[in-house]
Amino acid sequence: MLYPTPIAKLIESYSKLPGIGKKTATRLAFHTISMEDEEVAEFAKNLLAAKRELTYCAICGNLTDDDPCAICRDETRDETQILVVEDSRDVTAMENIQEYHGRYHVLGGLISPMNGVSPDDINLKSLISRLMDGQVTEVIVATDATADGEATSMYISRILKPAGIKVTRLARGLAVGSDIEYADEVTLLRAIENRTEL
Amino acid sequence: MLYPTPIAKLIESYSKLPGIGKKTATRLAFHTISMEDEEVAEFAKNLLAAKRELTYCAICGNLTDDDPCAICRDETRDETQILVVEDSRDVTAMENIQEYHGRYHVLGGLISPMNGVSPDDINLKSLISRLMDGQVTEVIVATDATADGEATSMYISRILKPAGIKVTRLARGLAVGSDIEYADEVTLLRAIENRTEL
Repeated sequence: MLYPTPIAKLIESYSKLPGIGKKTATRLAFHTISMEDEEVAEFAKNLLAAKRELTYCAICGNLTDDDPCAICRDETRDETQILVVEDSRDVTAMENIQEYHGRYHVLGGLISPMNGVSPDDINLKSLISRLMDGQVTEVIVATDATADGEATSMYISRILKPAGIKVTRLARGLAVGSDIEYADEVTLLRAIENRTEL
Repeated sequence: MLYPTPIAKLIESYSKLPGIGKKTATRLAFHTISMEDEEVAEFAKNLLAAKRELTYCAICGNLTDDDPCAICRDETRDETQILVVEDSRDVTAMENIQEYHGRYHVLGGLISPMNGVSPDDINLKSLISRLMDGQVTEVIVATDATADGEATSMYISRILKPAGIKVTRLARGLAVGSDIEYADEVTLLRAIENRTEL
């Protein structure tokens, strides 16, 4: 026996979400039916609104409901630094630590030879045009510490350094709170190489 | 920094779902933005349709988009047996094994003294009225093998037996494919008590 059509369709919608299998989708669909009418209406409205109202900032590529985004409009931020990240979630992570006060540039992806993502497929050209007026003195590459993240940071450094721009990247080393015993070899190697004086 | 309002609201909607924490909700919300317009519209439509079009069968309490449900309308099914389950998912699980051909009764919950759910809070009265015409000879209680499931099956057996109706419940024993070594003591005890001849 199959579920009644409306629930079967909802299960299908839920199971298209990443990391949601058939069983979880079924649980979520049944939960939806037990939710208040207004709550479900609100959920449906939020889905459509997120899709309709959000856009990418024309300057930095960050997700925003107001173009240019709040960070690009904020004149108190340091114009001389641009921190390059993969996506908007990374911007939020960085903003949460309240330590960086420069500008951002959101690539919307990473260069990935394995998956056929070339430099032209990510938001890189606009980064280069942002550097044209000579105001920016440092580009901080804050891509993930993965193979694709490394490939992207290497590429950015290779094209920007000849233009005389300082290119830095986030430090590699032991995660705070981690055990040396469980650290992988490459992390340990970087942690020794980049040791700092006490 | 917070996310733009439309995405913050969508994250909130997702995180109201059971088992979805803040991090997963954020991932799902960002995934939603990367989905095709039509897919998101379809998702929103399915949410509303499931809530609007589904109802509970007036006879058995099963979830249906057509009251009475397909099983209650099916005249080829055995009228003398009623299998009692907690919810519609259990009906589907039972139908999937294609072994049971009687009717169902969906309680929409289990009696739970711990959580203050009394017999009056679940769909029990209509089960008793279904037994009035004397056509049903066996009630199979197929509630979960948990404390609440046991409490519910005990209660049902206690009120139906005096009326001369045969009340049975699903067998307890080793799950097929399981190791004796890892079976809990109560399961093992039931498996010995209910041993069958080879």
